[in-house]
Amino acid sequence: MKISIIGVGLIGGSMALKLREKGIADFIYGIDNSDKHLSEALDLHIIDERADLEEGIKNADLIILAIPVDAARKLLPKILDLISENQTVMDAGSTKAGIVHAVQNHPKRSRFIAFHPMWGTENNGPASAVSDSFTGKAGVICNKEESAEDALQLVKKVAESLEMHLIYMSAESHDVHTAYISHISHITSYALANTVLEKEREEETIFQLASSGFSSTVRLAKSHPEMWVPIFKQNKENVLDVLNEHISQLRKFKSALEKENFEYLGELISNANKIRGILEK
Amino acid sequence: MKISIIGVGLIGGSMALKLREKGIADFIYGIDNSDKHLSEALDLHIIDERADLEEGIKNADLIILAIPVDAARKLLPKILDLISENQTVMDAGSTKAGIVHAVQNHPKRSRFIAFHPMWGTENNGPASAVSDSFTGKAGVICNKEESAEDALQLVKKVAESLEMHLIYMSAESHDVHTAYISHISHITSYALANTVLEKEREEETIFQLASSGFSSTVRLAKSHPEMWVPIFKQNKENVLDVLNEHISQLRKFKSALEKENFEYLGELISNANKIRGILEK
Repeated sequence: MKISIIGVGLIGGSMALKLREKGIADFIYGIDNSDKHLSEALDLHIIDERADLEEGIKNADLIILAIPVDAARKLLPKILDLISENQTVMDAGSTKAGIVHAVQNHPKRSRFIAFHPMWGTENNGPASAVSDSFTGKAGVICNKEESAEDALQLVKKVAESLEMHLIYMSAESHDVHTAYISHISHITSYALANTVLEKEREEETIFQLASSGFSSTVRLAKSHPEMWVPIFKQNKENVLDVLNEHISQLRKFKSALEKENFEYLGELISNANKIRGILEK
Repeated sequence: MKISIIGVGLIGGSMALKLREKGIADFIYGIDNSDKHLSEALDLHIIDERADLEEGIKNADLIILAIPVDAARKLLPKILDLISENQTVMDAGSTKAGIVHAVQNHPKRSRFIAFHPMWGTENNGPASAVSDSFTGKAGVICNKEESAEDALQLVKKVAESLEMHLIYMSAESHDVHTAYISHISHITSYALANTVLEKEREEETIFQLASSGFSSTVRLAKSHPEMWVPIFKQNKENVLDVLNEHISQLRKFKSALEKENFEYLGELISNANKIRGILEK
């Protein structure tokens, strides 16, 4: 099968590597606004050929859209305009209601699968791509009833090759859950980095003292705004709900400390410890 | 050299393993309130013999205090009462001003080294101990001018054996820095876990969707209250300062989102990205 990857970055590049390795991709076109990323992707054998949008789409059985969610939402209707009923498009974006809504009434809506692989790192670009990135991770398909059966089967095969397990839900549920499971983590991590950078002017001390705990909570703060501003924009209402809840949870810690209510502080921590059982099921 | 480890948990146990491996410890006594931990530590060859406090102290050249910071603060004066001028005591606690203050006027103050190894995990107990835990990490010695030169040299040798690099600062500076670099990370992580647990009643969904990003920001939320309540208690003022700053940083994200000021949101994220350069020096 011929595959076109639009956006040969961390996600698109990692998918390309694995799909070629598994033999499901015979030939991979790369489409990207960045000449640098295209050259790197060619050098790294992530793609076989660079293509412009029309040419890349024309020749592909499957088109994978792996660009920031605002750009994906704008581009998807144009891609659907260009494809035939034998071609399939899937995206890889972290928000789903917006993109599903954008093509709701498109005559070729059924050729699109709204997909979200639950994996990412704080790095970007094809040089960060790793073929086994998705192994064991969840892949979410949203609003599957709006997609054609053969397109769904194709994406199932892709997810299988990526060694992911599939979960199905509505785009709306997806956006609520990811606000909790992924988007808020990024905001707390950004805010934590800014807290430290604001007050700890002595960079050398941060560097010398930074413990593994700090590095892990602040890891996501390295993620780029080009990807994350559009996610927060598209999932604004859910993210705000969770952010308000998070601030009120932090205020409980603040109040327990201020009042020296250490019994309550212990209860807050014991409650948080329950996450261990859930994450390690 | 004979070493007594008071508190054969994650930190005390990991130190014991490495110090024996490096040949600096010939014989290790284990002292602990928990019979279970002592038996485990014996089974795992972390300690050679269990001892009660008086006996363990009497026979040791070096006494390592690796128990929660409130208990350490209470116990240290009693240990100093019991030792001779040829013995050395070091602690491993995450707060320093309290313990240093507790022995400020003790006649044997100079036999104590206030030490903090900048390493830990969310796990506890001797079964979690790993010999290479401290390699490449910072070890902080506080108020070194209050300690005897031979005691300092001994702890330097211990830090070398643990493969740590030493940093010196006052107990007060230490407690400010660790509020930023370590303590606040734990509060944000606990609060994040509570945020998700409060709203995401569907545990199965958290488990299925949880991405690597979520797992890393929430990892510290597994840390036990027995260790962390005393730390927050002893470092209350600094932690409250940082927590207030952190809440105000989160409010900036909230306000940017509410006002749909996505340019400002991008600036907040770009600023947070600077942590990359500092952590990867």
